[in-house]
Amino acid sequence: MLNYKELEQFTYQVFKTMGCSSEDAQLASNVLIKADLRGIDSHGVARLSGYYRLFEAGRINPKPNITIQREKKGVFSIDGDAGLGLVIAPKTMQIVLEKTEQFGASYAAISNSNHFGIAAYHAMMALEKNYIGMAMTNASPLVAPTFGTQRMLGTNPICYAIPAGKELPFVLDMATSAAANGKLEIAERKNEEIPEGWVETKDGNTSVLPTDLKKGGYLLPLGSNKEMGSHKGYGLGSLVDILSGVLSGANFGPWVPPFVSFLPVLPNLPGKGIGHFLGAMDVDGFIEIQEFKNRMDLWIQTFKKTESKKGKKVAIHGEFEFMEEKIRLVEGISVDEKVCEDLTQLAMKLKLDHPF
Amino acid sequence: MLNYKELEQFTYQVFKTMGCSSEDAQLASNVLIKADLRGIDSHGVARLSGYYRLFEAGRINPKPNITIQREKKGVFSIDGDAGLGLVIAPKTMQIVLEKTEQFGASYAAISNSNHFGIAAYHAMMALEKNYIGMAMTNASPLVAPTFGTQRMLGTNPICYAIPAGKELPFVLDMATSAAANGKLEIAERKNEEIPEGWVETKDGNTSVLPTDLKKGGYLLPLGSNKEMGSHKGYGLGSLVDILSGVLSGANFGPWVPPFVSFLPVLPNLPGKGIGHFLGAMDVDGFIEIQEFKNRMDLWIQTFKKTESKKGKKVAIHGEFEFMEEKIRLVEGISVDEKVCEDLTQLAMKLKLDHPF
Repeated sequence: MLNYKELEQFTYQVFKTMGCSSEDAQLASNVLIKADLRGIDSHGVARLSGYYRLFEAGRINPKPNITIQREKKGVFSIDGDAGLGLVIAPKTMQIVLEKTEQFGASYAAISNSNHFGIAAYHAMMALEKNYIGMAMTNASPLVAPTFGTQRMLGTNPICYAIPAGKELPFVLDMATSAAANGKLEIAERKNEEIPEGWVETKDGNTSVLPTDLKKGGYLLPLGSNKEMGSHKGYGLGSLVDILSGVLSGANFGPWVPPFVSFLPVLPNLPGKGIGHFLGAMDVDGFIEIQEFKNRMDLWIQTFKKTESKKGKKVAIHGEFEFMEEKIRLVEGISVDEKVCEDLTQLAMKLKLDHPF
Repeated sequence: MLNYKELEQFTYQVFKTMGCSSEDAQLASNVLIKADLRGIDSHGVARLSGYYRLFEAGRINPKPNITIQREKKGVFSIDGDAGLGLVIAPKTMQIVLEKTEQFGASYAAISNSNHFGIAAYHAMMALEKNYIGMAMTNASPLVAPTFGTQRMLGTNPICYAIPAGKELPFVLDMATSAAANGKLEIAERKNEEIPEGWVETKDGNTSVLPTDLKKGGYLLPLGSNKEMGSHKGYGLGSLVDILSGVLSGANFGPWVPPFVSFLPVLPNLPGKGIGHFLGAMDVDGFIEIQEFKNRMDLWIQTFKKTESKKGKKVAIHGEFEFMEEKIRLVEGISVDEKVCEDLTQLAMKLKLDHPF
């Protein structure tokens, strides 16, 4: 068990070593460790050496000049100057929140960025202002469209954060594929089979082996097959790709640069880096805020009381992560053994103290 | 085969008979027939006598005074005064488009409405302005949350319409359940079984009988079960319910008044009528519009060329409906026999000429 502050301090040092300013290193480590705190282990320190390898490959600019490319009242686009998404996204969200105060709603399309950590971090920034926050991003192509046998879309997450009153906020943060890549990594590490409907082989056959993804296979969209509605998962993944990639001037579809440094970036890119799409709306522009919070509390309490299957309970989105954070803030974070080894090596290479 | 103008004329007369103004009757019939033209037969004239029965039950006000309840720059809420959603939604979308011109983005939460037809009609109004349009609505509770055995959510559709250049616009219009209710109705009419993963019985068992829904069963969210990601479908359905119902002051969750007049409205309603959520964003605020259209064309052409399974092709969202409309405008619309009988009866009752 490691205290989150130790993890954050180490992460901060790694980003400093890359050449990030103290402010940016602080922000980036804060975003990254938030994933570990919320129980999204795949998106926290487990990715740290991945970011470092991208930096070594010349694909991350530690001192980006983040600029507004174009704007019209509430909406605007950002060029992230190849910086860390962990820095570009929360800085852009800050502008989104200011513009929401001015215009009731604000949306930003971001190009020339890199992986931005958990979408929920950015969307949840809106909660302090009593706004509804939204965050999406495109990502390395791994998902095939319905009937397709080729990787065309990332797991392209959609996140909405909505404030409540006495209850915890509603936070939906979901990949638009049937299963997120992290779940496959876990199955692979444990040498376990996966359920049918997550992955197909490169020849278009069903598979229960997580390793088939790395052998040229692909993930399936939410819904898994046409009969079960995979065209909807494919549609949502497309929507995220269009808003994050096409609208921003970033890359999209098969051209999204892979997070892993060992995979090549395709030639003739149609845009710059990866893309995000962030937004917020002022609840108070629709309804008196206290009335809204009371109504959200009633919504949450009503759904929690849904009659359910034996031994099961209906959960509210975000509940698990808030509970997990509460526990991990006190009890610490258990980092996977392989991740510890990996980070120990990184620490040695960079001559940094480390807690692993 | 019936010409769409005959259908529209008949529909117009029915709405006039309810007491709608000529303008409103025209708009409502236009929205309704758009569904038949686009091949969404379940949402067109097939629903007309349903609207009439709701009117007879005193649940539709043919002369609504549609008012802005609250507004803050780009965002606002509307009280639909129990009017037809077919009228309230496009009228509100008109305001959304005006506010988008002013503020870059605009969002409206609507309460005190009724069924609004196909979401795509409203979202697609944005296309003429080169905006991105969005439409959602909550609906009669039919869907159980993951692990739940109780109907808590409607099939709560999400629609986005995005302009392209030489290619057809991208129009995603999807229910957040594994299967839309219309598909069950078709299976029921044909006396066919449905795939596992669409419906469960009231006791929480899997079912292949479409009739189990009417026997107290429930629809499953997109993803069908937890392993395949039904918590994501449940999350999306929740999001639509919160934005359409909680934020607007409408009813939400199990309280959403059923479309069918023979089901009772629950007591102690937390709001008014059903709720919608509409929005638009000005593409030009993010990127030069011609550049965006060129990028969308490339996106669409790239995805169309995805390698696919034998005998199958990767489709783009909206493509099918545009093609269908082109055909049906010329060749006419084939209305189901039972729907024709039903509408003939309605015509006789209202003493109207009819084409059936």
